[in-house]
Amino acid sequence: MARGGNALKLAPLVAEFDLIDLIRARCAIAREDVRLGIGDDAALLAVPLGQALAVSTDTLVAGVHFPQGTKSYDLGWKALAVNLSDLAAMGATPAWATLALTLPQADARWVEEFADGFAALAREFKLSLVGGDTTMGPLTITLTVHGFVNEAAALRRAGARVGDAVFVTGTLGDAAAGLRCLDKNDAAADRLLATPPGSREFLIERLNRPTPRVAQGLALRGQASACIDISDGLVADLAHVCAASGVGAEIDAAELPSSPALLGAFDADARHVLQATGGDDYELCFTAPESAASRLLGDLARSGCGATRIGRIVAAADVRVRDAQGNDLVLPRRGWEHFA
Amino acid sequence: MARGGNALKLAPLVAEFDLIDLIRARCAIAREDVRLGIGDDAALLAVPLGQALAVSTDTLVAGVHFPQGTKSYDLGWKALAVNLSDLAAMGATPAWATLALTLPQADARWVEEFADGFAALAREFKLSLVGGDTTMGPLTITLTVHGFVNEAAALRRAGARVGDAVFVTGTLGDAAAGLRCLDKNDAAADRLLATPPGSREFLIERLNRPTPRVAQGLALRGQASACIDISDGLVADLAHVCAASGVGAEIDAAELPSSPALLGAFDADARHVLQATGGDDYELCFTAPESAASRLLGDLARSGCGATRIGRIVAAADVRVRDAQGNDLVLPRRGWEHFA
Repeated sequence: MARGGNALKLAPLVAEFDLIDLIRARCAIAREDVRLGIGDDAALLAVPLGQALAVSTDTLVAGVHFPQGTKSYDLGWKALAVNLSDLAAMGATPAWATLALTLPQADARWVEEFADGFAALAREFKLSLVGGDTTMGPLTITLTVHGFVNEAAALRRAGARVGDAVFVTGTLGDAAAGLRCLDKNDAAADRLLATPPGSREFLIERLNRPTPRVAQGLALRGQASACIDISDGLVADLAHVCAASGVGAEIDAAELPSSPALLGAFDADARHVLQATGGDDYELCFTAPESAASRLLGDLARSGCGATRIGRIVAAADVRVRDAQGNDLVLPRRGWEHFA
Repeated sequence: MARGGNALKLAPLVAEFDLIDLIRARCAIAREDVRLGIGDDAALLAVPLGQALAVSTDTLVAGVHFPQGTKSYDLGWKALAVNLSDLAAMGATPAWATLALTLPQADARWVEEFADGFAALAREFKLSLVGGDTTMGPLTITLTVHGFVNEAAALRRAGARVGDAVFVTGTLGDAAAGLRCLDKNDAAADRLLATPPGSREFLIERLNRPTPRVAQGLALRGQASACIDISDGLVADLAHVCAASGVGAEIDAAELPSSPALLGAFDADARHVLQATGGDDYELCFTAPESAASRLLGDLARSGCGATRIGRIVAAADVRVRDAQGNDLVLPRRGWEHFA
């Protein structure tokens, strides 16, 4: 919180206006473990005895990670959601966040709606915003989130074993389909107009307001052998698990879980590409021994979001997606490419 | 660390190139309390028993916080320095950082030099880089730093009392003078050519490679009544202390500490404006009872960077800078204006 931290003076657009204070006012969540929140050079925080601190950071850049013109409410929600998704993938309980918000101008309305979106999700998890920095420049949002997890129970990427089953929570491909819905030149957008009412809106909502699978990550502690959240795409992210574990994976395309909206708008081939490589799903992909599968699937169903078995861990060091005939799908890419 | 976290595939410019891994390789500092570092969805960290976690975040934006074309080595150094400065201002011991780096392109050489600058300063404080996210977009650097401090001993902004003396470490105005040296149309740059060799370089170095006053912050624990780091400018930052403490301050312009380089290049009037409002100094400004002054100044001198008494805390709720005749200096602004 250098450069004025929580007491920015905004001369031209919003006189005597304090962006971080405004965000704080809308994100006020009292926590006993926040000993000193926004308003000093650093926050002072108390980590519970016996718990490890889990820390992750993620950036969203306008025009790269979201279309220009995305509603600021959705950006506030999504910036927090994608970070909470990382804590979920570790099996950690969310606690605190810091926000670095770079804005082209000091637009109070924009910031209020951003804060409302952030706060709506933060309240669900009693997450407290403890610090931040607002700067002028191209629209960029960086959050750093903090949570707690017992070190021995944390879900790691390394740990998948040959013979483990591969699972995924929720449904895949919706966010990538939602992004196509926003493209006016995409035929899928037209086709969706002919599907049951709300399909298009559902897919765009999945893109803009993903649900971090925090409860599911907590339920997986001590049961999953490895876990990751799907941000870049199933194949790309599962490849991280495989690389960390020294194994490979075979995925059955026909088993990939689909929402009714996705089923209604895309044929199987197009759907499988979206599901295998689309990214922005923020579902959890995890592995577990077959013997643990039925108990684990029951626990997840009770947590409010079920999971689906989609494949298995194998020795060959690669991630393959197979069709019903057992042939490898030809995928145009593995997932989101950061500097492509 | 969503979107691939530490395993980014950079197709076009740097094949199979992993920016965060590259940074990690150059910033490898082993710490017992890092239970799981870069390479998973979140880092797992152990906070020492009885210590509060101090957390701060700061962003540098190209063209706003530093001139386009600033060397990446200097940016790596400065991004860490301005964040460590916030920990110093709390009296906290640095431990860990996460880095969110947004780059217009995947330029390996640029990133290597950035990492070298970061690592040079990180090594001094045994600070470990534990996570990060690299994204494509306009050059923006956000760091979140973590340190430890006993909650009761932490240096806060609130706590200055009427009658306390006001102090500052090091010298003021050098960084702002350094920025003027970089402006080819600024007469000061010419004048500096006539001063002793190295003056211009010294001032630019103060701008690009500030020294976070970590040891001084530690020495001030239990002695200073309030503390802040000077990032926006003395008057603006001291005003934060005054607002938090419900007091005001009088500063004597003649007492403001000046480097020989600054003295050689600017007359008193210009110098005082740079020192009072220039910003980017990253010195500590703190208050203490008169009775503590001599011991405190001795402790700081032994820490390797002395401090200077520059004024006093008063009841009137404002920060004034007075000349030798006791008249208020007329300042064009209070300090850096974030959205001006």
